[in-house]
Amino acid sequence: MNAEIIAVGSEMLTPQRIDTDSLYLTDQLNAYGVEVTFKCIVGDDRALLTDTIRLAITRSQIVILTGGLGPTEDDLTRDAVAQALGVQLTYQPEVFDNIAAMFGRLGRKVAENNKRQAMLIDGAEWLENTHGTAPGQWIRTKRGVIILLPGPPKELTNMYEREVRERLVALLPKQSLRTRWYRVAGMGESDLDQLIAPVYTRYTNPVTTILAKAGDIEVHLRARLEDAEAAEALVHELGLQVEDLLGDRIYSRNGDPLEKTVGLMLVEHHATVAVAESCTGGLLGARLTETPGASDWFRGGYIVYTVDLKKALVGKAAGEQIQTAGTVSELTATLLAKAAAERAGATHGVAITGVAGPEGGTEENPVGTVWIAVASKQSVTSRRYRFPGDRSRVRTLAAQSSLDLLRRHLLGEKG
Amino acid sequence: MNAEIIAVGSEMLTPQRIDTDSLYLTDQLNAYGVEVTFKCIVGDDRALLTDTIRLAITRSQIVILTGGLGPTEDDLTRDAVAQALGVQLTYQPEVFDNIAAMFGRLGRKVAENNKRQAMLIDGAEWLENTHGTAPGQWIRTKRGVIILLPGPPKELTNMYEREVRERLVALLPKQSLRTRWYRVAGMGESDLDQLIAPVYTRYTNPVTTILAKAGDIEVHLRARLEDAEAAEALVHELGLQVEDLLGDRIYSRNGDPLEKTVGLMLVEHHATVAVAESCTGGLLGARLTETPGASDWFRGGYIVYTVDLKKALVGKAAGEQIQTAGTVSELTATLLAKAAAERAGATHGVAITGVAGPEGGTEENPVGTVWIAVASKQSVTSRRYRFPGDRSRVRTLAAQSSLDLLRRHLLGEKG
Repeated sequence: MNAEIIAVGSEMLTPQRIDTDSLYLTDQLNAYGVEVTFKCIVGDDRALLTDTIRLAITRSQIVILTGGLGPTEDDLTRDAVAQALGVQLTYQPEVFDNIAAMFGRLGRKVAENNKRQAMLIDGAEWLENTHGTAPGQWIRTKRGVIILLPGPPKELTNMYEREVRERLVALLPKQSLRTRWYRVAGMGESDLDQLIAPVYTRYTNPVTTILAKAGDIEVHLRARLEDAEAAEALVHELGLQVEDLLGDRIYSRNGDPLEKTVGLMLVEHHATVAVAESCTGGLLGARLTETPGASDWFRGGYIVYTVDLKKALVGKAAGEQIQTAGTVSELTATLLAKAAAERAGATHGVAITGVAGPEGGTEENPVGTVWIAVASKQSVTSRRYRFPGDRSRVRTLAAQSSLDLLRRHLLGEKG
Repeated sequence: MNAEIIAVGSEMLTPQRIDTDSLYLTDQLNAYGVEVTFKCIVGDDRALLTDTIRLAITRSQIVILTGGLGPTEDDLTRDAVAQALGVQLTYQPEVFDNIAAMFGRLGRKVAENNKRQAMLIDGAEWLENTHGTAPGQWIRTKRGVIILLPGPPKELTNMYEREVRERLVALLPKQSLRTRWYRVAGMGESDLDQLIAPVYTRYTNPVTTILAKAGDIEVHLRARLEDAEAAEALVHELGLQVEDLLGDRIYSRNGDPLEKTVGLMLVEHHATVAVAESCTGGLLGARLTETPGASDWFRGGYIVYTVDLKKALVGKAAGEQIQTAGTVSELTATLLAKAAAERAGATHGVAITGVAGPEGGTEENPVGTVWIAVASKQSVTSRRYRFPGDRSRVRTLAAQSSLDLLRRHLLGEKG
């Protein structure tokens, strides 16, 4: 089965608006083996919209329209679908009562033009909107189904989950979906692909998807078979091989971001952390404190952007060592990490010092050079990085790499 | 004139990919008064793509295709356009030489299948790609023009600027475009709209666009007239009224982000800044140091996530005051701002202390409550905020508001 998604609304054709609804729907449909073969955005133009729907229903079994379900004259989706199907719209008092009740809960008064939203396409089932006032519609046709959903993402996702998913699954060939989700740090996308492609390309089922952000890669495996146990066995078989190749570069198996993984490890180790940041200027602290409850394991830190503040943090004797070694050096990173932990009363300190650019590079330490150190009473881990890209990318990669270095340090201490 | 944009490639129909090319092109086209009335994404399906192009050229004067210009069998755009127009493709040695030279500069060897990229649709002019190997094509038709552009955003934007813009402008009715661009902090989108709508809705030219992110709003005015001076007079007329209403809530007239505006003001004041952050955990420092050259005016700071670190920063006597006043209080914010400035040797200190949630709210200080203080030798500015939304939004708004409070503090000191 294939699907086609039509987003309706002139505001979706401006330079700023992204059709995120179609991304969500594609993800949902793919999960059940339905491919999206075409998607488009149409403005508030009745003739063009009607033509677009007419064409869609001749070539796609599942046609989903998003938006254009409001109460005004500009909201054309209902009319255009009825016209494309050659059927009528009928006012449904029951649907209107539901809309009126929703307005009541929002403390607003339902208006006369909201009656437009209670017009059902002949043959349609209505889909309740628990997060807004525009009901959706579900229309079975000879070829398949046409689904009308509201545009606002919260309304759409809630309606999909409550009203659409089950109805859709009932139309599809019976399938069980079993997945694996790995998050990986410490390697680039092409290195990762080179490493695991020889394994995953041997399988068309499970399907493997690789998603990469700066220094952070997700590997998704999705197996689909009629029998749930067989699907699980299949994803297990490929999953084991992928895990074997990636080893401890996998930091999460449930989607947790790196800072949360690190936080959970710190709790497990009865440890706490403090930071000293130069070129990242607070980015690592900001990442660590994104996780609710970070105060259980995060103490605080020092943004030591100037040489003076670096020296002030480490104290007089060590300050002289920094002067000699240079601010971008292993010694400085290590001294800063130790001092941050000590001053903040944490068991572990992480320090970042480098050249984010665009100015400040030298022959010894070109732009992108960053030293990161993790220090605890037991041991120190330090590493020199050379990150590619502009200032923003260097800083993002430095924060991400420092979290990963802390994770590896903690793994080492455990063993 | 209206335009239609067709993105080509099955990879663009996955749940992750956003068609940013069409956003860029829409912005460019709108600037010359061309409206985009339809856009779509088609997978690598020859029949569907050909049909889509055939339909597009019957209803839109400008049809732009992006992607599908590579050297493989999957790259169907050239073939499909030729088929839709009912013309042939012809191999052009001159284009191939250009591709081969590009490979040379990249230190790679051109392959036999790159000859596919040198196939020109009959009647097309070729568009040089200075950032990649896929040439574009420009085909005048009776109704208008068909433009083939490469998919990678860097290649597309460079080709548009070098090869397409001028050609397009020559086709369009002569128009001069004059713009204003304001960035505004310290008010919500609906408040801003309520304030300036009575003025801007009186004009259909200039066109007014309002874009909102968390605590940061952009207002764009675009006037279009044949005569450049008249367009300038028109945008000036509306611009003055908008500036009058928004007053010092406008922080930038050239697109600079708030942290850069603040940095420039600090330089002007011969001032420097240091931060003390509790609930934002480093986010303000990270924002301040996003700007290259921040070391001219940023010293560093203290991430004081725990009560102990707050007390340690302010010293013993003030620490007792914090204990009494509570960590989320005007006094604590003020003491932290003063101490940060003093300890870091900066003229100005900014402190943020609040409840980001989801836990930690009290009756007195519910989740979202944040105290921010700016302190210098001359004066202190402090303010209590109550931000809506989840943890991430509260933190983002707190960092943004602290930058704006610093800006207002500096404005006050200047006067």
